[in-house]
Amino acid sequence: MIVALAGGVGGAKLAHGLYQLVQPHTLAVIVNTADDFNLFGLRISPDADTVMYTLAGVANPATGWGVAGDTWNTLEMLTRYGYEPWFRLGDRDFATHIARSEQLGAGRSLTDVTQTLSGALGVHAQLLPMCDEPVATQVDTPSGQLPFQDYFVRRHHQDPVTGVSFTGIENATMTKAAAAAIERATLIIICPSNPIVSIGPILAVAGYRDALGRSKAPKVAVSPIVGGKALRGPADQMLAGLGHEVSAFGVAQMYRGLIDGLVIDEADADQQARISALGIRVLVTNTVMNDEADRVQLARETVAFGQAQLNAGNQQAGRSQLDITSQRP
Amino acid sequence: MIVALAGGVGGAKLAHGLYQLVQPHTLAVIVNTADDFNLFGLRISPDADTVMYTLAGVANPATGWGVAGDTWNTLEMLTRYGYEPWFRLGDRDFATHIARSEQLGAGRSLTDVTQTLSGALGVHAQLLPMCDEPVATQVDTPSGQLPFQDYFVRRHHQDPVTGVSFTGIENATMTKAAAAAIERATLIIICPSNPIVSIGPILAVAGYRDALGRSKAPKVAVSPIVGGKALRGPADQMLAGLGHEVSAFGVAQMYRGLIDGLVIDEADADQQARISALGIRVLVTNTVMNDEADRVQLARETVAFGQAQLNAGNQQAGRSQLDITSQRP
Repeated sequence: MIVALAGGVGGAKLAHGLYQLVQPHTLAVIVNTADDFNLFGLRISPDADTVMYTLAGVANPATGWGVAGDTWNTLEMLTRYGYEPWFRLGDRDFATHIARSEQLGAGRSLTDVTQTLSGALGVHAQLLPMCDEPVATQVDTPSGQLPFQDYFVRRHHQDPVTGVSFTGIENATMTKAAAAAIERATLIIICPSNPIVSIGPILAVAGYRDALGRSKAPKVAVSPIVGGKALRGPADQMLAGLGHEVSAFGVAQMYRGLIDGLVIDEADADQQARISALGIRVLVTNTVMNDEADRVQLARETVAFGQAQLNAGNQQAGRSQLDITSQRP
Repeated sequence: MIVALAGGVGGAKLAHGLYQLVQPHTLAVIVNTADDFNLFGLRISPDADTVMYTLAGVANPATGWGVAGDTWNTLEMLTRYGYEPWFRLGDRDFATHIARSEQLGAGRSLTDVTQTLSGALGVHAQLLPMCDEPVATQVDTPSGQLPFQDYFVRRHHQDPVTGVSFTGIENATMTKAAAAAIERATLIIICPSNPIVSIGPILAVAGYRDALGRSKAPKVAVSPIVGGKALRGPADQMLAGLGHEVSAFGVAQMYRGLIDGLVIDEADADQQARISALGIRVLVTNTVMNDEADRVQLARETVAFGQAQLNAGNQQAGRSQLDITSQRP
């Protein structure tokens, strides 16, 4: 069992690479739900949906989010009714939010609902919300505290970030499904997602740090910062705003004590020594996923790198080597 | 002020004729909401929406319901999620139900929400739900009691009808807006809608029979039965199943004591004497609305017929004649 922690588009790409690389039922993706919010009376789970659509092969390749070839008639009509269309939802995408809201309203857990929806789209990996309780990321800016999607989408993440908090996190707990996946994990991968608002909330939910700490599986992360910039989204501005170094090394510092290894881009090869000095092994490779082949390639190298951590550990402990993945032919 | 009582497609057509005939703000359409139901967690108001789309000029001319040129991607995706697409909702139509549900969820009344939505679509007549409380028509059949839309849409109104009841009707009251419209009415028109499940629920809501009885405005109905058949829908089977004569005369019997006049089709001219013998004046004309010109023509004749009732009454009472409508030039 490979367990991947993921946020939105970047995380979904690597998860998709893993999904194509290994037997799907041996992959569990634990996804951030602190970006979830209510819109038009519906419950939206942007990161879970991005991962679901991506693994299902129906994601819009141009945007990374939403459904390929979707139409916009529902949103257009809602605009006629006076709603502001700041958050773009296509007609097929609306069905996901309608179904989720209906099923949550009927008393089902977000984990159950996500399982049903992703299963219906033919996703055979486990797609696991980080928790079933509502958690809402708040971003502190000079203009005041903003709900995450207001900051991120409505205001195009242009505000300087001076703080981040997760409303409701104190009531959130790791789900049984996520705990079981981590317990069975032979490799844990932190996807190249925003360390503060995508991976951060997962690690802040009660249970995850302990479970990851207890797990004997190797833990490797892929840096979302390449050449001092986020490939996508505001991770770079957020790191800077919160006093972190905006670099692969900065990411290594944030994950120190949690990970055994970090995959960094060739553009950051010069940081290898600094990161190694933190006690974190480093793989330098191409981490920019421009196409599907890149996703599988990065997944393959990340898995091999993870196996190498285990083998290194085994050699130290005198244990036998394990082939931790059952790769597709 | 002309007040029209209406159900779905047939009622919407005559309401549309009236809407084009008179100054829009002098028309109020009180619409049946006992067909309303929940689907996909959303609140659907089929009759109100049909009237709204028709008056707004965006109704699908092929079906009479739904939005012209609508697409079906949300429903298709919901089908992928395992929902049965027995009730056809287009993508633009979904926006109406999403907006209604969101606004009802925020605590607004159905009257308020309907006003907002129809206003946004440019409808300048008052579109008034019969009540703000939920009422649900139940149809008794040999297969058991069925919720109305199950009987009507899912099972294509093929079951014999042995009874009809309106769940929640005991808690429903005429709205203030409907009461005010009836108080100001100079003409009340019962549209050619199903007397049992469209007009019946309106008349069963506390307040309407009294208010209509108090009103000095002439009251005329248009028969939905032509040549012994309903032009559309199951009114004929329902009348038969509940022991009514399936004819314009049968409709006259049902509305006896409520209406001054009945508009019947040329096909039913031979029933004029029997209906007159009930104390109901009769106008014989073409009542089949195949195109928009037919709608306006029937509206014009129905209004003139209503005025004639008033004048006949005035002549009896020695009152002066009134021009009760301010018709568009």
